[in-house]
Amino acid sequence: MQADAVFRTLAAIHARAPLVHNITNLVVTNTTANALLAIGASPAMVEASDEVEPFARVSDALVINLGTLTSPQAAAIKLAVAAAVSAGKPWVLDPVGVGAIPYRTGIAHQLLDRQPTAIRGNASEILALAGETGAGRGVDSGADAKAALASARALAERSGAAVAITGATDYVTDGKRVVTISNGHPMMTRVTGLGCTATAVLGACVAVETDALVAAAHALTIIGVAGEIAAKRARGPGSLQMEILDALYALNEETLTRRARLATQDSE
Amino acid sequence: MQADAVFRTLAAIHARAPLVHNITNLVVTNTTANALLAIGASPAMVEASDEVEPFARVSDALVINLGTLTSPQAAAIKLAVAAAVSAGKPWVLDPVGVGAIPYRTGIAHQLLDRQPTAIRGNASEILALAGETGAGRGVDSGADAKAALASARALAERSGAAVAITGATDYVTDGKRVVTISNGHPMMTRVTGLGCTATAVLGACVAVETDALVAAAHALTIIGVAGEIAAKRARGPGSLQMEILDALYALNEETLTRRARLATQDSE
Amino acid sequence: MQADAVFRTLAAIHARAPLVHNITNLVVTNTTANALLAIGASPAMVEASDEVEPFARVSDALVINLGTLTSPQAAAIKLAVAAAVSAGKPWVLDPVGVGAIPYRTGIAHQLLDRQPTAIRGNASEILALAGETGAGRGVDSGADAKAALASARALAERSGAAVAITGATDYVTDGKRVVTISNGHPMMTRVTGLGCTATAVLGACVAVETDALVAAAHALTIIGVAGEIAAKRARGPGSLQMEILDALYALNEETLTRRARLATQDSE
Repeated sequence: MQADAVFRTLAAIHARAPLVHNITNLVVTNTTANALLAIGASPAMVEASDEVEPFARVSDALVINLGTLTSPQAAAIKLAVAAAVSAGKPWVLDPVGVGAIPYRTGIAHQLLDRQPTAIRGNASEILALAGETGAGRGVDSGADAKAALASARALAERSGAAVAITGATDYVTDGKRVVTISNGHPMMTRVTGLGCTATAVLGACVAVETDALVAAAHALTIIGVAGEIAAKRARGPGSLQMEILDALYALNEETLTRRARLATQDSE
Repeated sequence: MQADAVFRTLAAIHARAPLVHNITNLVVTNTTANALLAIGASPAMVEASDEVEPFARVSDALVINLGTLTSPQAAAIKLAVAAAVSAGKPWVLDPVGVGAIPYRTGIAHQLLDRQPTAIRGNASEILALAGETGAGRGVDSGADAKAALASARALAERSGAAVAITGATDYVTDGKRVVTISNGHPMMTRVTGLGCTATAVLGACVAVETDALVAAAHALTIIGVAGEIAAKRARGPGSLQMEILDALYALNEETLTRRARLATQDSE
Repeated sequence: MQADAVFRTLAAIHARAPLVHNITNLVVTNTTANALLAIGASPAMVEASDEVEPFARVSDALVINLGTLTSPQAAAIKLAVAAAVSAGKPWVLDPVGVGAIPYRTGIAHQLLDRQPTAIRGNASEILALAGETGAGRGVDSGADAKAALASARALAERSGAAVAITGATDYVTDGKRVVTISNGHPMMTRVTGLGCTATAVLGACVAVETDALVAAAHALTIIGVAGEIAAKRARGPGSLQMEILDALYALNEETLTRRARLATQDSE
């Protein structure tokens, strides 16, 4: 996993402006659309059952986020995912709050059968999705990212998805390979929806990079490096949220390559 | 079309604090409410079928934005528009994504029969609304504003609305007159929902200015000038989104008149 | 009512990170989640009927905000409130727009029978909730906070809730005691949803402070002091919205105690 490859993914997003279809939660609609625009993608939030099928077919990637799931949204998600899969488009799952809330845990397990390209969650969510008893309470994780790695590998093998666990250190695995990303800043946990933003960026990455493990590792590096740069300028979480968008917009090859801290783990 | 008249419209908004009823998309609820507050209007987002009729009747203007249209929202929109029209209140249509997504294209065409006061969209959306084959993909335009002018004129004649096409140069027409506005900044395309914000500001303008062509030209000038001022202070799209609200709040007669670049086109 | 007690409430939030369950309006999901994170609470927005009951039971407090009420949301609110009450969890009501809009006025009156721990609104909303003819138009108040105090006392006696009326000076009463808070800044009325943010912060306060009158007074002091600090740094409402989050995050004992302007009113 080479640091300079991260910029190639970002440059491909800039060059191709992939249309990223998001069905996401009410908290992050604005911030994830802005993050996608900042990296050069073309976001659209389309979530009505009447609209999602044709839209998923023409989009370059689909992002499903369960953060404020409702029953009509769950129905639209199933239609959108089926349309994306049948059209051969990549799709990404963010299982927000899975494990802590039974209804969405059930929906998430059903979605695992639809060949997600990548999954990103915190440790509690990934543990719950892998069938373990979740350590989550609310939407924040009660568990350490590394502690969820074995479950993430099993989940990747079973679902075929690249699975990303975000935390102080992020882990990405496709069951065989494991990559760690050590970018980011602790204050990012005080801004709502930055995990969701990482997933949205991942949606843009899978649209231009066919190796889902690589796409996930690059997405987490991009958001992590932007977070570090933003944290140096921010006085608190309000300015951090704003500065991350500015940092994503300004990311260049030199900065990204110098700051990227990706490492391929030795196989165990 | 005189530059100093723009400030008179803004001053009227400050003086009368029009109540602007918005049924809008999930991405821009916060930013458009804040833009309306920044220019002195009183925004309210009310979109339940149980609530929209009495609220539209007491409001000074209604803004309809199709950006994340759902079937219950479409039902509420029809009730709200009918109530506004029967109460003699102006209403504004933002056909986000029309042309790219069949369901909302159908709804938008139905709304054209309800005498909109003004319509604002990008070139693809206006072309689609006028019955042309849309060039849109997602919610961003694939066409040039000027290329949509002939269609906009026809749409204005047919619907009775002032029609605004926004782009690098904006065009506003009522079928006969054509005004161009050359304010704004390219980085504004990297902030989500600034077109929607222009439409919300237009809602406040039609509440205080009965000539819809003038109201639309003034609204686009106000948001364009604020965008220019903000872009000088911004490091990227995150700070631009914030700075536009500060610039809208601080707009004064001298700045607005000096920067406004409106021109009446010679009739063709 | 002592100024130094405000920080003890804030410190308890930091120490215990209460899980605050929000069913709130579409305009403030992001900003209220961020405000709760900034003061050290753990927010979650969960509003599906399929999800709210188990979530309300495990949360430390429930915040109900009627700002963009829909019929499915009203159903979920009733389930969530019943679950919170039966689990002995505190819950807070923000009657946004009550009085101005009949449907939500009816829902709000029904909720009064469910033993709210605290209620926060502007003068028009509190007058309407107390059964007076509302002076509200849209979601902004047409009445002065002090003018609603007698009604607030009656409402508190009847409902058992601590009732907070926010305005230039805030009033909090449990029917017997009355506390005034004279913090805040006029520009805060130009940022959407800061009243909703005060209510969200109140949700975190009732999770750690059992005297609801004290919790409400402390919440309004926290948001008012943060607003004052932010206003000194802000150029307009855009930067004010951001700076309030930074100020909430950085609040310390010295600043909070020095700036807090709470006073217990002599009984009348």
